[in-house]
Amino acid sequence: MTRFPRIPAPLSKRASRIRILLMDVDGTMTDGSVTLLSQSDGTALEIKTFDAHDGQGLTLAHSAGLRTGCITGRESPALLRRAHEMKMEFIYMKQPLKMPAYEDILRKAEASDHEVAFIGDDLPDIPLLRRAGLAVAVGNAVPEVKAVAHYTTRALAGHGAVREAVELILRSKGIWEEMIDKARA
Amino acid sequence: MTRFPRIPAPLSKRASRIRILLMDVDGTMTDGSVTLLSQSDGTALEIKTFDAHDGQGLTLAHSAGLRTGCITGRESPALLRRAHEMKMEFIYMKQPLKMPAYEDILRKAEASDHEVAFIGDDLPDIPLLRRAGLAVAVGNAVPEVKAVAHYTTRALAGHGAVREAVELILRSKGIWEEMIDKARA
Amino acid sequence: MTRFPRIPAPLSKRASRIRILLMDVDGTMTDGSVTLLSQSDGTALEIKTFDAHDGQGLTLAHSAGLRTGCITGRESPALLRRAHEMKMEFIYMKQPLKMPAYEDILRKAEASDHEVAFIGDDLPDIPLLRRAGLAVAVGNAVPEVKAVAHYTTRALAGHGAVREAVELILRSKGIWEEMIDKARA
Amino acid sequence: MTRFPRIPAPLSKRASRIRILLMDVDGTMTDGSVTLLSQSDGTALEIKTFDAHDGQGLTLAHSAGLRTGCITGRESPALLRRAHEMKMEFIYMKQPLKMPAYEDILRKAEASDHEVAFIGDDLPDIPLLRRAGLAVAVGNAVPEVKAVAHYTTRALAGHGAVREAVELILRSKGIWEEMIDKARA
Repeated sequence: MTRFPRIPAPLSKRASRIRILLMDVDGTMTDGSVTLLSQSDGTALEIKTFDAHDGQGLTLAHSAGLRTGCITGRESPALLRRAHEMKMEFIYMKQPLKMPAYEDILRKAEASDHEVAFIGDDLPDIPLLRRAGLAVAVGNAVPEVKAVAHYTTRALAGHGAVREAVELILRSKGIWEEMIDKARA
Repeated sequence: MTRFPRIPAPLSKRASRIRILLMDVDGTMTDGSVTLLSQSDGTALEIKTFDAHDGQGLTLAHSAGLRTGCITGRESPALLRRAHEMKMEFIYMKQPLKMPAYEDILRKAEASDHEVAFIGDDLPDIPLLRRAGLAVAVGNAVPEVKAVAHYTTRALAGHGAVREAVELILRSKGIWEEMIDKARA
Repeated sequence: MTRFPRIPAPLSKRASRIRILLMDVDGTMTDGSVTLLSQSDGTALEIKTFDAHDGQGLTLAHSAGLRTGCITGRESPALLRRAHEMKMEFIYMKQPLKMPAYEDILRKAEASDHEVAFIGDDLPDIPLLRRAGLAVAVGNAVPEVKAVAHYTTRALAGHGAVREAVELILRSKGIWEEMIDKARA
Repeated sequence: MTRFPRIPAPLSKRASRIRILLMDVDGTMTDGSVTLLSQSDGTALEIKTFDAHDGQGLTLAHSAGLRTGCITGRESPALLRRAHEMKMEFIYMKQPLKMPAYEDILRKAEASDHEVAFIGDDLPDIPLLRRAGLAVAVGNAVPEVKAVAHYTTRALAGHGAVREAVELILRSKGIWEEMIDKARA
């Protein structure tokens, strides 16, 4: 009935330990579009496009007790609003280097690397993907990112990649069916 | 000349009874994109993208005497304007649980479940899909939704899925050709 | 070198007579998206997405002496700006029925049906497609529209369908290569 | 591990000499969408959508010492902001004819044609593509542009075409791996 592929035992073991789910924004929570609206005063405002299925996935993650967050080099009220809608706990914007933010989150959450999953798509995500207990590349990540990931989603970024990562984790914990039943109650 | 597939008799019987066509919004009337425009004051405005073919389909439904409506967890002036353009009668926004809205509509319309079609794509739509006389999943619904639907559209959400549901209903009532002739008069 | 398919003689004869190129807007000059931006006062503004290749095609048409225009049921400053950028001569907005606008254009241009091409995608375009000397359906038009068209573009609406129609006409007139040479001079 | 195709020796020779990377905007840095937002005063504002992977590519190009720029017929604060984010040195807007801008850049940079790469997609780019030492057509360029290009990207415009051109150049110079290592440090 459901199309999720069989999860190999070593991957399932990694995923079952995750307590914290972190992710990049552009090209991970979005499809990588960078959209700007020209203003008549010569400036431009940023538009961001997220995915409703990803949002439902993050709601499931939250209900399951996972703590979530995002780390990005850019900054926009659009992301801030979406992150709040998704009840994300850790929101780090304007981070050209992402490692300090990553380490700050681990400190605050009193977590170690093997309890953290990170989802990314491009070169600046690689150092974090190398440390995270579960490194997930979105389906359209660059080859260098896929090469260091434990799992590459079949879904593309901004079209369900985040939800697929959530499903991978909840299935590995053996609580996917239970969460689904709650969500559709 | 037309490519609509043959409709099995049990499905046709279900669809022929429909008087009220209800639907989810994000991922059903839209492609699931959640688009936000950053404002300089730190807030963000919501952008929604609907489909012109779906709009024409809802116009056909309306001409055929169907009553239409939408139930969604979100709220936006963009949806409100589109729903008014489509002459939708029932507009329920900010409904994290959709069942109370569904029951309210049935009460107002003095209709019973078997006279109602519902189109959806994700977990929160499942309780309604289980009650509606005709449960339609959009082509890119999650597997759990497709599993409870009587019909899954070939078209994707935001790209003709709503129109395909309208066509299914009007064909089952035997009035599709007549409505088309009127529309192109 | 170029991939345009061979044009059958009867089609070429039709296309070679065209002096006026008219078209629908939503689903023809755009991909059919109806995009609305919520405003904080509860209203919504319309966003329209056109195609740069189509624009270049309309510039070629204009250079070749064709007169161009659009007829649409909707109204927006976005369309108005684009139509002006494309130097369109006939701009008819808010036309739920399109025939009066069509006839008005023919009167102003002192043209007869066989000198007019019309490009469309949905039911309200059918009456005009039945009259126009060259009736063009975009690649993703509904089946009822394709059924009455003399030519269906391989390109999809909002992704080169208008340009393909221009190329069909200029090739049929035997002036495509000449116009290309001018454009890339 | 990486999927970049083998680069033929003559192409590699051309690409290895490039010091300046110039490009068209609509249909090259974007997917060719021309998006306009209606304003209540009857005017319209331009929205432009760029690609995060292209942005990362331009950052790599910049780190490798390449000088970059764009030449376009249109004008918008959206492009200006993105070009500044990408640290582009040469920004020429409102250039219906692109050759004067091209020649102005060569003069300022004290460069000759064989040191310049140009990426384009449509007819107005052809004169520059004929002069540039490395002429790159995006994957969805019109046939006339592909015909004069030394290389056509597998990626589509607005979806990695610019990054693929950067990778072609840095690989031909033998510094791709080194730049990647720096970027993911």
